[in-house]
Amino acid sequence: MAIDFTLNARQRELQLDARQFAREVLSGAKASYEKLPSPEERFLATRPIYEAMVRAGFLRKCIPIPAGGENAGLIDMAIMAEELYSVNSSITLTLLGTVLGLLPILLGGTPEQCGRLLAPFLKKSGAPLAGFCSSEPGGSANAASPPPGEGVRTTAKLRDGHWVINGRKKWVSSATGWDRGGADVLCVVCRTDPDASPEKAMSIIAVERPAAGIVLERAIDAVGHRGHLSPQFGLENVTMPDGNLIGERGGGLALSSASFTGTAALVGILGVALMRAAFEFALHFARTERRGGIDPIIEHQAVGYALADAKMKIESTRYLSWRACHAVDTQHPAADELAIQAKIYGSETAVAVITDLMRVVGIDSYDNELPLGELLRDALVLPIFDGGNMGIRRRQLHAMLKRSDYHPLTASGAA
Amino acid sequence: MAIDFTLNARQRELQLDARQFAREVLSGAKASYEKLPSPEERFLATRPIYEAMVRAGFLRKCIPIPAGGENAGLIDMAIMAEELYSVNSSITLTLLGTVLGLLPILLGGTPEQCGRLLAPFLKKSGAPLAGFCSSEPGGSANAASPPPGEGVRTTAKLRDGHWVINGRKKWVSSATGWDRGGADVLCVVCRTDPDASPEKAMSIIAVERPAAGIVLERAIDAVGHRGHLSPQFGLENVTMPDGNLIGERGGGLALSSASFTGTAALVGILGVALMRAAFEFALHFARTERRGGIDPIIEHQAVGYALADAKMKIESTRYLSWRACHAVDTQHPAADELAIQAKIYGSETAVAVITDLMRVVGIDSYDNELPLGELLRDALVLPIFDGGNMGIRRRQLHAMLKRSDYHPLTASGAA
Amino acid sequence: MAIDFTLNARQRELQLDARQFAREVLSGAKASYEKLPSPEERFLATRPIYEAMVRAGFLRKCIPIPAGGENAGLIDMAIMAEELYSVNSSITLTLLGTVLGLLPILLGGTPEQCGRLLAPFLKKSGAPLAGFCSSEPGGSANAASPPPGEGVRTTAKLRDGHWVINGRKKWVSSATGWDRGGADVLCVVCRTDPDASPEKAMSIIAVERPAAGIVLERAIDAVGHRGHLSPQFGLENVTMPDGNLIGERGGGLALSSASFTGTAALVGILGVALMRAAFEFALHFARTERRGGIDPIIEHQAVGYALADAKMKIESTRYLSWRACHAVDTQHPAADELAIQAKIYGSETAVAVITDLMRVVGIDSYDNELPLGELLRDALVLPIFDGGNMGIRRRQLHAMLKRSDYHPLTASGAA
Amino acid sequence: MAIDFTLNARQRELQLDARQFAREVLSGAKASYEKLPSPEERFLATRPIYEAMVRAGFLRKCIPIPAGGENAGLIDMAIMAEELYSVNSSITLTLLGTVLGLLPILLGGTPEQCGRLLAPFLKKSGAPLAGFCSSEPGGSANAASPPPGEGVRTTAKLRDGHWVINGRKKWVSSATGWDRGGADVLCVVCRTDPDASPEKAMSIIAVERPAAGIVLERAIDAVGHRGHLSPQFGLENVTMPDGNLIGERGGGLALSSASFTGTAALVGILGVALMRAAFEFALHFARTERRGGIDPIIEHQAVGYALADAKMKIESTRYLSWRACHAVDTQHPAADELAIQAKIYGSETAVAVITDLMRVVGIDSYDNELPLGELLRDALVLPIFDGGNMGIRRRQLHAMLKRSDYHPLTASGAA
Repeated sequence: MAIDFTLNARQRELQLDARQFAREVLSGAKASYEKLPSPEERFLATRPIYEAMVRAGFLRKCIPIPAGGENAGLIDMAIMAEELYSVNSSITLTLLGTVLGLLPILLGGTPEQCGRLLAPFLKKSGAPLAGFCSSEPGGSANAASPPPGEGVRTTAKLRDGHWVINGRKKWVSSATGWDRGGADVLCVVCRTDPDASPEKAMSIIAVERPAAGIVLERAIDAVGHRGHLSPQFGLENVTMPDGNLIGERGGGLALSSASFTGTAALVGILGVALMRAAFEFALHFARTERRGGIDPIIEHQAVGYALADAKMKIESTRYLSWRACHAVDTQHPAADELAIQAKIYGSETAVAVITDLMRVVGIDSYDNELPLGELLRDALVLPIFDGGNMGIRRRQLHAMLKRSDYHPLTASGAA
Repeated sequence: MAIDFTLNARQRELQLDARQFAREVLSGAKASYEKLPSPEERFLATRPIYEAMVRAGFLRKCIPIPAGGENAGLIDMAIMAEELYSVNSSITLTLLGTVLGLLPILLGGTPEQCGRLLAPFLKKSGAPLAGFCSSEPGGSANAASPPPGEGVRTTAKLRDGHWVINGRKKWVSSATGWDRGGADVLCVVCRTDPDASPEKAMSIIAVERPAAGIVLERAIDAVGHRGHLSPQFGLENVTMPDGNLIGERGGGLALSSASFTGTAALVGILGVALMRAAFEFALHFARTERRGGIDPIIEHQAVGYALADAKMKIESTRYLSWRACHAVDTQHPAADELAIQAKIYGSETAVAVITDLMRVVGIDSYDNELPLGELLRDALVLPIFDGGNMGIRRRQLHAMLKRSDYHPLTASGAA
Repeated sequence: MAIDFTLNARQRELQLDARQFAREVLSGAKASYEKLPSPEERFLATRPIYEAMVRAGFLRKCIPIPAGGENAGLIDMAIMAEELYSVNSSITLTLLGTVLGLLPILLGGTPEQCGRLLAPFLKKSGAPLAGFCSSEPGGSANAASPPPGEGVRTTAKLRDGHWVINGRKKWVSSATGWDRGGADVLCVVCRTDPDASPEKAMSIIAVERPAAGIVLERAIDAVGHRGHLSPQFGLENVTMPDGNLIGERGGGLALSSASFTGTAALVGILGVALMRAAFEFALHFARTERRGGIDPIIEHQAVGYALADAKMKIESTRYLSWRACHAVDTQHPAADELAIQAKIYGSETAVAVITDLMRVVGIDSYDNELPLGELLRDALVLPIFDGGNMGIRRRQLHAMLKRSDYHPLTASGAA
Repeated sequence: MAIDFTLNARQRELQLDARQFAREVLSGAKASYEKLPSPEERFLATRPIYEAMVRAGFLRKCIPIPAGGENAGLIDMAIMAEELYSVNSSITLTLLGTVLGLLPILLGGTPEQCGRLLAPFLKKSGAPLAGFCSSEPGGSANAASPPPGEGVRTTAKLRDGHWVINGRKKWVSSATGWDRGGADVLCVVCRTDPDASPEKAMSIIAVERPAAGIVLERAIDAVGHRGHLSPQFGLENVTMPDGNLIGERGGGLALSSASFTGTAALVGILGVALMRAAFEFALHFARTERRGGIDPIIEHQAVGYALADAKMKIESTRYLSWRACHAVDTQHPAADELAIQAKIYGSETAVAVITDLMRVVGIDSYDNELPLGELLRDALVLPIFDGGNMGIRRRQLHAMLKRSDYHPLTASGAA
C-alpha cells in the first residue's frame, strides 16, 4: 500500500490484449458503416465487430469476478476502455453501455437475479446488449423533482404479480436492440409509487427480452458516435414479473445514482482516450507535414507549445481518472466526489484539447478524411451524457460542498 | 465624425431586407439538401436558393458601388452577412466565397478587366460563382517560403501570349462550379517566375469559364457547412490569355494578402452570426424547458450566468468586428491589425461560446434535430480557414509587433 | 449618425490634455507615497497631486455640462480616464470615486441640491472629495434582500426635520476625507423605512461636511491601489437636514442602481487602461531584452503570440466599453446590459491579460521595481468592486435574461 | 506494485507531523514579520521560526537517507511540503530553497564533498542556508545560448588550485544569508571554459561560508513571499579550492538541469498547497457569510459551482504532481516530462483558481486582513520561477516532442 502508478501484470496484459484487438479488429471497423445513411443501418453494420469483441472476452472482462466475470475493478476497466475507445468510440460505447445497463443488477440484484439476468453476458458468444433506461424525452436533469415537476415520467403499476410499464425513454445506448425488439436486458427507472416523495417513489425494473411493447420512435441522428444506437422509444404496457424489480422498491433513485458513480470515473478515461488519439495524430502530422515551408511544422514554437499543453492536459486527466477509479474500487469515502470530478474535468478537457489540436493541424482538420473532426464530435457528448455537467454533475458536487461534514482533504486521504 | 454605434438608414434597411430574405427563403433551405449523401449532391441542391439570393440582389449588394454594384463598404457587408449567415451558413458562404473570388480583381484589376470579369456578377440572374484559389493540397501556411520550401506549387508559364497553368488547389469555395467545369471566374495564385524571390515570384491569374483543364479530384466531405462545396481539384494545362493576369506580375502574394484583410474582418461577424443563432436557441430553450423540474431551467443560476457570459462575448465580438470593418472602410493604418484581431477573436470565441451553449441545453444538443451541433460544426472552420489562426493569422500579428514603427495606440486612433 | 470609431475634435483634445497631465504630473506621483507604511499616510501624500488634478480641471471635466461642469458624456469620461488611470490608478480612482459620490445628486438631486452640493466640485481649486456610501461590513451583495436578510443595515431616522444616520460602511473611496472628518459630500444609502419592502425602504441622504459622527475604524490595507483610501468607518448619529434626502424617499435602491450603470461602463475602460500600461511595458521589454540569448525575446513565437493575444483582448475590451458608454450617453434601451457586460468583461480580461504578460516578462515581473505586479494588484479589484461580478453584476444580467421582453438583438440596435 | 493512491504509514506520520508543526508554529509566524518595512528585515525576523523548523527535523527530512538524512523520496517531500507551504509559504520556501541549493551536491558530489558540505544541514540545530545560484540579472532563460548570446555571465577562473569567481546573481533564495555574508553553501553556475561550446563551458562550484566577496546589491521587494529573501548580489573574486567543483568540469548545465527536474515536480505541489489554503478559506466563508442575504452564500449555485470547479482543479493538480514525483523517485523514463508538466500545470492552475476564489469571496478578498490576496501574490511566482513556463519549461517540453524517440504513452507506462 503506497502511492504508485505502475500497472500490475494483469493490467499490463489487459492493456496489451485490448490494444492488439483494437489494432487488429477495431481500427478498420469504421469502414463498414460510416457511409451508411441512417443511424440504425450504421449500428446494425457494427454487429460483427461487436460480436468479435464479445468473443474475444471483452464483455466478460467488464463483469466483476464475483458475478462470474473477469473484471477485477474499475482501474482495469479504465485501462481496457482507453485502448478500445481511442480506436473506435461507437462500438466501445455499445460495450460500455451494456455494462452500464447491468450495473443496477450488479449493485442491487439478488443472487437469483444476477444468475438469471447476467447469464447471456457471461458467455463469449452472441451480441448481447443491455441498457440503463434513465433519460426521458423532455429531459431528466430533475429526476428527483417533487411535484409539480414531472421528474421520472415512466410509470410501473403492479397488477397480478406483474409490473406494467408505460413511458418513453431517450438516449439509452442500444436500448431497442439489433431488431427493434429491445436489448436482452433493460433496467428501467420508473415511478412505482406515484404518491410517495421522490426518494421513495422510483424503482428499477429489469425488462428481459423478449418483451412486447418496446416501440422505437426514432434512432437519434447524433452529432457523433455515428456507429452507435441512441434510440428514442416507448414502453407500452411492457409487462414483467414482480421478481424483476431490482433492489428495494422505492430505491430507484439511490440505485441509479450509485450506478452512475462508476461510470463517471470512466468518462474521464473516455476523454483521455479521445485526446490520446487526437494527440497521436496531431503529433505525427506536426512532425511530418511542412505545409509549404522548409521544416516540419513542429519546429514552430507555437505548434510545439500547443502540443505540449495538450499532452499536459491529457496526463492530468489520466491520473485524476485513475485516482477516481481507485477510490471507487476501494469504496473510499470521497469516491463520489472524485468520480464526478473525473467526469467533469475529463469531458470538458477532452473537448478543449481536441479543439486546440484541430488548430495545430489547420484547415485540413476540417476534412473528414482526417480523424480530428470525428474525434471532436465524439468528445462533445462527454460533458452532456452520463449526467450533464451543468444540470446534474456540478449540482451533485454543490450538494456535497454544502454538507456540514464535507472535508476538503478527504479526497486525497489527508483529512 | 464621432464615436457612434447607430446604423444609418441604408444599413438598417439592408439589415431588415436581409433578415426578411433569410426568414422567408433561407430558413427552410436546409431541408432541400441535408439528407443527400454526398457533398456534391448537397451543393447542387442549394442552387435554387443561391439563385434566389442573386435575384434578390444580395450578390450586387456585395460588389462596391464604384465597380458597378451596390455595396457601400465592409460594415454594410457585415450587417448583411450577419443576417444571412446566422440562418444558413452554407449558402451564404457560397455567396461570400464568390465575393472573395472577385476581390483580387476589385483590388488589382484594370478597368477593362473589371468590366469584363465582373459583368456576370452584377446581373440579378443566374448563379454566378467565383473562387479565390490560394490553398493547395499539402497546405499553404508557408506560401511565401523561400526554397527548399515548396511555397506555392501551382505554376503558370507564358507561352505565345497565354498563361498555361498547372497545379492543384484545395478548400476553394465553389471552385469547380455547378457542373465540375469550373466557376465563372477563378483567381488563381500561381508561380509565374520560378527563379524570383517569393515576394516577386507569384501572380494572380483570372481563369474564366469555360476553361478546359479544371479537374475535380473530390468534393471534400467537411466537418460542417454541409451544403457548401469545397473541392480539391487540379488545373491541368489551363490556358488563359496574357491579359488575364491581375495586378502586377510578381505581385501575387501582396494582392492575395490585401484580399484577405477584408475577409478577416468579416470572419469576426460570421462568428457573431453563428453565436447569435445558438444563443437565440439556447435562450428560448432555457426559458421554456423544465427538464422534469418545476421551473424553466433559466431559473437556475448556472444556466442564467452561462447565458449571460455567452451574450457578453457575442457583443464583444460584434463591436471589435465593426471596428475592424470601419478601419478597412476608412483605410485606417491599423486596418490589418484590427481585421486579423477580429478574425482570430471572433472565430475562437464562436467555437467556445457554442460549445458552452451546448452544455446549457444538455444532452439533447447532441441530437441533430436541434441546431447546436450543426452550428458548432460550422463554427469549427472559422479559426482554421481564411488563414489559420495559428499558422498564418497570429504570425501576421507577430510580424507587426516586431516592426519598429508599431504603436499600440494606433488601433484606437489614440497614437 | 453612423457606425464610427473616430474621436471628435473635443475628445481628441481631451485625450491629449489628459495624456500630457499624466506624463508630466502623474507619472512621478508614486514616488511620493509608495514607501510610506500605512494606507492613510500614502493617501495623504497623494493630496498635492490630486489638487493638481483638480486645478488642471479634470474634476470639472467629469461633471456634466448641464450641472455646471464640462463633461459632454461618458465616452469623453472614458477617453480621459484611460489616459489618467493607465499612469496612476490610485489617484485617478480618488477622482472617479468622487464623481461616483456625486452621481446620485446628478441623477436624482433637485436644482437646489445640485447647486448647493456640487459647488465645491466645480471650482478648480482645493481637493474636494465625495463618496458613494453603499457597501457595508458584512457585505452588500444582497442589499435588496427581504427579511430576515439584513440587506442595508445603516438606518436613518427622521427627528425634528433631521435625519439621524447610524451604521457602518466599508470600501467607500475617500469617504473619511483627508482628515478623518469625512469627505465634502457623502451619499449614504440607508434604511429610512424599516417596515417597507426593500424596493421602498431605502433612501440616499447627502451628508455634507462638516458632519459630526464620521468615525474611521481603519483604513483598509488593500491588495492594490496603494495610494487610495478605502476606509471602514462608522456613522454615529450623523445628523442632516431633511432636505438632504436625494431623490424620492424610498427610492434609494433604484437611484443606487442607476448610479452604478455608468460606472460599470467605465470599469471596462479601467481594465483597458491597466492592460494598456502592462502591454506597453511588456512589448518594450520583449523588444529590448535578450535574457542571455542572441535575439530580443520578441523573436520567439511564443512571446510574439502572447503579446498579440493580449493586444487583441485589449482592443475587444475597448470597443465593448465604448459601445456601452455610447449606450449610456444615448439612453439606449440596452444601456444597462451593455454597461454590465463591459464591466464584467473588461475587469476579468484585465486580470487575465496582465497575468499572461507577467509570464512573457518572466521572473523579473515578480520584482516590484517592474510595474507588472502592481498593475495586476490594481486590476484584481476590478471584478469585485463596483458590484462584484459573481454576486451582483451577473445576477443583474441573469434577471434581464429572464424578463419576457428581453430581446437579444436590442444591444446592437438590430432588434 | 499497483496503481495506488494511499499514503503508507511513514508518509501519513510525516503528513500529520508537518501539519502539527504548521498549526502550532507556522500559523502564527507571519505576525512576527509582516509589518516590517523592508524585505531584509522581514527575512531576518523569520529566523526563529526557521530554526524551529530545523530543530523539528524538517530539513533532515528533506535530505535523502543515503546522504545521511531522512528523506525517502520526492513523494514524501511533496506530502510534507504541502502541509508546511499551505500555512506559511515564505519560510517553507526558505527551507525548500536550501534543499535546492544542496541538490547539485546530492546529485553530483563526491562522497567527500557530500560529507563535508552537507554536514551543517544534517544537524537539527542552527539555521543553515544553501542556495542554487543560477539566475542572473538580465535573465537566464537562454543560459545555454551560444555566442553572441551572453548565456551564463558569471565566470570562474582557475588560479593556483583555486577557482576565482566573478559575476552577479539574482533570485537565489537566501543566497546572501542571515548577515549578508552568504549562505552556508552556494552552488554557483559559472563559466569555467569560456571557449567551449555551452554544453561544455559551464560548471557548478560550491561556495562555502565564510567566503569573502559576496556583495548584496539589494534584497528584492517582491510581489509575494514577503518573508523570504530573494537577493540580487555580486560575486567579487570569490575564491574556492579546486575541490569544490561539483560533478564534472563543463557539466554544469546538465547538472543544473537535473537539479531542476525534482523541483519542477514539487512546484506542482506548491500550487496545490496555496490552492488548498485558498479553498479552505473560501469554503468556510461561503458557508458562514450571508452578505446581507438570508442564506449563506454557498446556497447560490454560482458560488457552489465555482467552489466545485476549484476543488476539481486542486485534485487534478495533486495527482499529476504525485505521478511526477513517483516518476522521479523511480527514475521513470518520462520523469522529466511529467515533472515539467506538473510544474506548468500546477503553477498556472494555482493562479487561476485563487483568482477565481477571490471572486467567490468578493470585495472583501481585496482586504489584506483576509488571506486570499496574499495567497495569490505568492502563487504568482510559481509560473515564472524555477524555470519560467514560457521561456524555459515549455521549451523543454517542445524539445522532447521533437525527439524522434518520443512516445506519447511512455508517461503513463503504456508505451
